[in-house]
Amino acid sequence: MRRFVVTGVPTVLPSYVSGGWRRPSDDGTPVRDAVTGHDVARISASGLDLGAALEHGRRTGGPALRELTFHQRGALLKALASHLREHRDELYSLSAHTGATRGDAKFDVDGGIGTLFAYSSLARRELPDDTVCADGPVLPLGKGGTFLGRHLLTPLHGVAVQINAFNFPVWGPLEKFAPAFVAGVPTLVKPASQTAYLTHRLVELIVESGLLPEGALQLVCGGAGDLLDHLTPQDLVSFTGSADTARRLRAHPTVVRHSVRFNAEADSLNLSALGPDATPGTVEFDLYVDSLVTEMTVKAGQKCTAIRRAFVPAELIDDVEQAVAERLAAVPVGNPAHPDVRMGALASLEQREEVRRSLKALRDAGRVVFGDPDHVDVVDADPERGAFCSPVLLRADDPDRAEPHEVEAFGPVSTLMPYRSVEQLVDLAARGQGSLAGSVVTADADFARAVVLGAAPWHGRLLVLDADDAGESTGHGSPLPHLVHGGPGRAGGGQELAGLHGVAHHMQRTSVQASPAVLSAVTGEWVAGAPRREGEHPFRKPLSRLRVGDAVVAGPRTVTSEDIAHFAEFTGDTFYAHTDEQAAAENPLFGGIVAHGYLVVSLAAGLFVSPEPGPVLANYGLENLRFLTPVKPGDSLTVTLTAKRITPRTGADYGEVRWDADVTNAEGESVAKYDVLTLVAKEG
Amino acid sequence: MRRFVVTGVPTVLPSYVSGGWRRPSDDGTPVRDAVTGHDVARISASGLDLGAALEHGRRTGGPALRELTFHQRGALLKALASHLREHRDELYSLSAHTGATRGDAKFDVDGGIGTLFAYSSLARRELPDDTVCADGPVLPLGKGGTFLGRHLLTPLHGVAVQINAFNFPVWGPLEKFAPAFVAGVPTLVKPASQTAYLTHRLVELIVESGLLPEGALQLVCGGAGDLLDHLTPQDLVSFTGSADTARRLRAHPTVVRHSVRFNAEADSLNLSALGPDATPGTVEFDLYVDSLVTEMTVKAGQKCTAIRRAFVPAELIDDVEQAVAERLAAVPVGNPAHPDVRMGALASLEQREEVRRSLKALRDAGRVVFGDPDHVDVVDADPERGAFCSPVLLRADDPDRAEPHEVEAFGPVSTLMPYRSVEQLVDLAARGQGSLAGSVVTADADFARAVVLGAAPWHGRLLVLDADDAGESTGHGSPLPHLVHGGPGRAGGGQELAGLHGVAHHMQRTSVQASPAVLSAVTGEWVAGAPRREGEHPFRKPLSRLRVGDAVVAGPRTVTSEDIAHFAEFTGDTFYAHTDEQAAAENPLFGGIVAHGYLVVSLAAGLFVSPEPGPVLANYGLENLRFLTPVKPGDSLTVTLTAKRITPRTGADYGEVRWDADVTNAEGESVAKYDVLTLVAKEG
Repeated sequence: MRRFVVTGVPTVLPSYVSGGWRRPSDDGTPVRDAVTGHDVARISASGLDLGAALEHGRRTGGPALRELTFHQRGALLKALASHLREHRDELYSLSAHTGATRGDAKFDVDGGIGTLFAYSSLARRELPDDTVCADGPVLPLGKGGTFLGRHLLTPLHGVAVQINAFNFPVWGPLEKFAPAFVAGVPTLVKPASQTAYLTHRLVELIVESGLLPEGALQLVCGGAGDLLDHLTPQDLVSFTGSADTARRLRAHPTVVRHSVRFNAEADSLNLSALGPDATPGTVEFDLYVDSLVTEMTVKAGQKCTAIRRAFVPAELIDDVEQAVAERLAAVPVGNPAHPDVRMGALASLEQREEVRRSLKALRDAGRVVFGDPDHVDVVDADPERGAFCSPVLLRADDPDRAEPHEVEAFGPVSTLMPYRSVEQLVDLAARGQGSLAGSVVTADADFARAVVLGAAPWHGRLLVLDADDAGESTGHGSPLPHLVHGGPGRAGGGQELAGLHGVAHHMQRTSVQASPAVLSAVTGEWVAGAPRREGEHPFRKPLSRLRVGDAVVAGPRTVTSEDIAHFAEFTGDTFYAHTDEQAAAENPLFGGIVAHGYLVVSLAAGLFVSPEPGPVLANYGLENLRFLTPVKPGDSLTVTLTAKRITPRTGADYGEVRWDADVTNAEGESVAKYDVLTLVAKEG
Repeated sequence: MRRFVVTGVPTVLPSYVSGGWRRPSDDGTPVRDAVTGHDVARISASGLDLGAALEHGRRTGGPALRELTFHQRGALLKALASHLREHRDELYSLSAHTGATRGDAKFDVDGGIGTLFAYSSLARRELPDDTVCADGPVLPLGKGGTFLGRHLLTPLHGVAVQINAFNFPVWGPLEKFAPAFVAGVPTLVKPASQTAYLTHRLVELIVESGLLPEGALQLVCGGAGDLLDHLTPQDLVSFTGSADTARRLRAHPTVVRHSVRFNAEADSLNLSALGPDATPGTVEFDLYVDSLVTEMTVKAGQKCTAIRRAFVPAELIDDVEQAVAERLAAVPVGNPAHPDVRMGALASLEQREEVRRSLKALRDAGRVVFGDPDHVDVVDADPERGAFCSPVLLRADDPDRAEPHEVEAFGPVSTLMPYRSVEQLVDLAARGQGSLAGSVVTADADFARAVVLGAAPWHGRLLVLDADDAGESTGHGSPLPHLVHGGPGRAGGGQELAGLHGVAHHMQRTSVQASPAVLSAVTGEWVAGAPRREGEHPFRKPLSRLRVGDAVVAGPRTVTSEDIAHFAEFTGDTFYAHTDEQAAAENPLFGGIVAHGYLVVSLAAGLFVSPEPGPVLANYGLENLRFLTPVKPGDSLTVTLTAKRITPRTGADYGEVRWDADVTNAEGESVAKYDVLTLVAKEG
C-alpha cells in the first residue's frame, strides 16, 4: 500500500511540475476513503507556480516531443503501456479506496492502458515516420499543375491541459494524454481531488519509468488556482465533469481571449431504447435488461455515459420493470474488496448527498420502483461512514415530464419511461439536449436505422445491440479509442478519441500553397510536377539510398489485338469490350475494342520491374487506380514510376515505399494512374 | 440602380425572415455611400422576431433540406451560382457604393459565386447521392467480425447563423452558406450595416430565383438584437470581424450554455516574408513587391488576410522600401467608378478614423516611408466626403517592438521590418499570436520548408510564391474553397471552407456500433459480414434493380506453375519471385514461387465477369487492393463480388457501383481484397 494511505497522518500529495516533485506550501485538505471514511491523503496546490509549469511544458516538453517522429512517439506509448500493465495490480488495489470493485478498477485501469496501446498502434500504422504530417489529397489549384495546395498538420506549441473528473482517475488522464502525445503536444493533468491519489500514483509510475521526455507529462494535485490565466493561443484545455463547470471554464476570459481550443465532456442524460420486437423471451429483451443493470451498477453508476433514461414500448414497461428489479435485487452492495460485492461505494459522502438531492427532483416526475434512496444494506462495511447508495430504478409513466430529461443523478439511478412510436422516441431522445452515448436494443434493422438516424444529431455515440453483436459488444457505456467520445449541447459539444481525429485536435491544420517542388520539400512526399531523378533503377536501391523523387521511365510496349485476345482467353475475362468488335463499338465509352485495365497494369509492371533479387521484397498492394483513357489495339504504353513516400518501419529491417505510377500512351495522355505499394529492405 | 440608392429619401432595407420580406418597426439609421457620403439606404431590425426566424429555419428550412440528397443540394447550388452569375453586373455596380473598384467587386462577387460552384462540384463528387454520409473506414471492434464501428455524419437540426463583416458583402455570406447548405443546414445571414444593401440585393436575387426551399436562407438587416439568446444546442454561429467582437460573442451566455459551435475569423496581423535569395533583379524580388502592393491596395487593404507585417532580410530592406514606394506612388486613388482609379475608398468615414487611430500607435514603433495618413490626392471625388485614405507603408527597424505585431490598421497599411535569420523570422511570425494567412517569397525550397514548418502552428494558410507557381498562384490574400480559411489565436481559432471539413463542421459526427447487417442498413453501404444475396448475376442488373448486398461467387480456378511462367513471359514481369525457384525460396515473405498479384486480380476478373453486353459499362478503377496471402502454384482461387455502394449520377443515365472483391484460396483464406469501381446503366 502506498505511503499516503497508511494509518496515522496521511501525507500531502506532491505535484510533478517544472521537472520535479513539488510539495505545496500548506498542509492541504483531506481526501477520504469512499468505503471507510478514513483520510487517504491530503491535497493542495498552494504555492505551486502553475504559469511556470505551463512554460516548462512549452519550453522543455514540446520541443523534445516535436523532435520525435510519429512512429517514435508510438513506440514510447507502447513501452509505457507495457510498463503500466506490469504495475496494474497496484493500481487495482488503490482503486478500492475510491469505492471501486475489482471489475470497476479494471474498467478504469485496463481501459486506460488499452487506449495507450491503441494510439501506439495507430501512430505507427496510420501516420508517417516523420515529424510532419500531410493531410488529405494534393489539390491542383490551377490547370497547368504548377500551383498546388495541401493541408499540413503540425503540433501546437503549447500544453494540453486536462481537468479531469473523479470517476476515471486512470482512464481519464490516459485517454486524453495518448492523442496529445502522438500529436507531439505535452500534457498537464489536474485530477479531481476525491481520487487524485490514484492519478498521482499513475503519474509516479510513468515518471519512474523514465520513458518520456521531461516536460511531456506534468501533474498538479489540488485546485486549478490561476492555471487558466496563463494559457496562450497554442495551449488546449480538455475538461471532463459537470455541465456547469464546463460552462464556467469555457467562458474563462483567457480561454476566450486566445481562442484556446476547449473540449468538454459533460455528464449527459443518455438513453437506451428497447425495440418493440424485443418482447420477453427474446434474446434482445434479456440483453436490454442486462445492459441497464450493468450501466446502473458498474462504478456505482458514476459514468458520464451511463443510462439515465430507459425507454421501452408502453406495452412492455411492466415486464421490463419487473425483470430489472429482480436483477437489481441480486446485486450485493458493500466493501468493494469483499469477493461477494458487485457494487461498491460512491466516490464520497458529498457525492451521495448530491445523488439524493437529484433523486428528490426526479421523484416529482416518477416513482421509485426499486431501491431506497436513503437506505441500503451493505456487505462488510459501515453504511454511514462509507458512501453507499442503493441502485434506484424510477418509473415515469408520462415521458413528457421535464425532470427525467434534465436532472441527472450521478449514481446508480435510471428512469424507466414508455414510448408509443418511433417518432415519439426520436423526439424524446432530443429532449436530453445532447448526449455522449445512446443505445438501441432490437433485432429489427429498420427500427434501428430509424432510431439511429433520428437520434444521431444529438449523440456522440450510438450502439445497436442485438443477438448478432452481443457476444463481441463492448457495451453501452464504453468509449473506444477509435470512435468519437463526446456529444453535442449538454454533453459539452466535445470530441475526444475518434482515432486520428483526436490527434488532429492537438495540431494546427494549415493549408500550404506552393509549386510542386516546394510542396514536395515541405511535406517530404513527392507530388506530380516535382523534379524526378532517373539513373540507377530505383528498385535496386535499399531504403538507405532511396530518395523521394527517384524514378524509372520504361517502355514503350505496343498493345496488339493479339495481346488483348490472348489475355481474354488466358484469364477468362471475355467481357465484350475486349472481344466483340461490334458490341464494343456500341459501348458509349469505348467505341471499339479496348485492352483490359488489368492487362494495362500487368504490362506496366512488366515494364517497370527489375527482375533480379534486390531490396524490393514484395508488392503488397495498390491504391487509387483510375483508368483514364481507353487503350486501343496498336497503342504503345510507357510507364513512369516515381518514389512518392518512404516509410521505414521502426524495429524492422524493411519499410514501405509508395510509388506513383503513370502509364501514358504515345500521345502522352495518361491511360492509368495509381499508387504501387511495396516493401523494401533498409539495407543490402 | 436599386430602389434604395435613388436620390431622395432612401428606403429602409427589409429583412427576409419567417417566409417573407419584413420591414422594421422604425425608420432605422442611414447607411452612407463610401465615395460620396450620400445616404444609400436605411437599416434597422427593430420589431423583427428573431427567435421566430430561427425557429422557422429549424422547422421549415431544415426538414426541407434534409429531404434532399447531397447530390440534389449540389445541383441546386450550381443552379444558384449560374443565376447569380447572370446578375453579377448589377452586383458589381452596387459594389461601387462600398468604395470598391471593379476589380475589388469581382474579387467579392466572382469569389462568392466560384465558392458556390466549387461546393456544388464537391457535393456531387465526394459525397454520396444520399441523405446520410458514413465517414471513414468500417472499424472491426472484435475479432469475430460481428461487432463493427463507423462514424456517421448527420446534419445538425439547427440554423447556421452568420454574423458577417462589412468588407465582403457577397463572398462573406456565400462562403459560409455553401458548406452549410451542402450539409443540409439552413442559414440566417446578418450582414454588417455599412454594406448590408449589397448583401440584401444578393439575398433578394436568391429569393427571386425560387431555387431554394423556403427557410433555407434568411436575412436580417440591422442589429443582431437578441438573436443569440434564441440559440439551441443544434444551432451554429459563424462570425467574421474584429477580434474583440469575436470574444464577446464567443462568451455569450447562450453560446456557452448550449456548447453552440462557434467559428470566428478575425482580422489578424498576417505576414509576408522575402527569402534571402530574392535579391533585386530576381523574379522573386519582383513578385514580393507586386504582392505587397496588391495586398495593400485591393479593397483598400480592408481584407482580413491582407499583409500587415512585411519581413525582409535586413540587407534588402532599403531596396524593398524603394521598390514598394515607387509602385505605390503609381496607384491612383479615388472614385472607384473612374476608369483610371486603382484603389477606391474605405467602407466609411468611421473606418478611416479607425485606421488613423491605429496608424498613430504604429508610428510609435516605425516611421512612415510612403503615404500621408491624413491626406491623399483623389481622382473624381471629394476627398473629405468620401472615405479615402492613402496607402501607407511604415518601416520599423526594430522588429522586436510590440506595436507592429499587435496593432492592426484595417486599411491600406503595412509595416516593413528587417530579419536576420530564419530562426528570428519564425519567432517574429509567432508574435502575431495567430494569423489567417502568411506568405514566403523565395526560390530556395529549404528556406521555404523551414519557414512553413516553423510558422504553420500559427497559421491557417501559408503561400510559397516563386517563379514556378507565380503564373497560376491566386495570391496571398485569397481564401480558396478547398483549403482551410481561419487561423488560431488572434485570428479567431476558426476553420471555414477546407472542402469537406467545412461541410462536416455543420454535421454531428456520431460513432455507430452495430452488427454488420444493422450497420449496412443504417449507412446504406454493404459491409463485410452483412447478408449477401446470390442469384441472377449482379452484372446483369441495371441500377434500377441492383441492390446493395447483391453478390456473385465464382470459381474455383487453379493457378498452375505454367500460368505463372506464362504470365511472366507475356507481361514481361519476370520478377524473381515468379520465375526463380531458388531465389524465391530465399525471399523472407514468400519462401518459393508465387503468382503475380496482377495475375490474381486478372484471373479474379475472369471469374466474376459477365461477358455479354449489359448494364455494366466499364470498370473505371480499383481501390484499396491488398495482397494478403501468397498464391502458390496449385492454389485454387474463388472470388466473391458484392455490391457495396450504389451512387446514381444525377442528370446522367448511369451511376457508379463500388463492389467488394474478396479472392480466397481453397483453405478459405483471403489472398486479395479490393474494391472494384464500375459504371452501370440506370436502366436496360
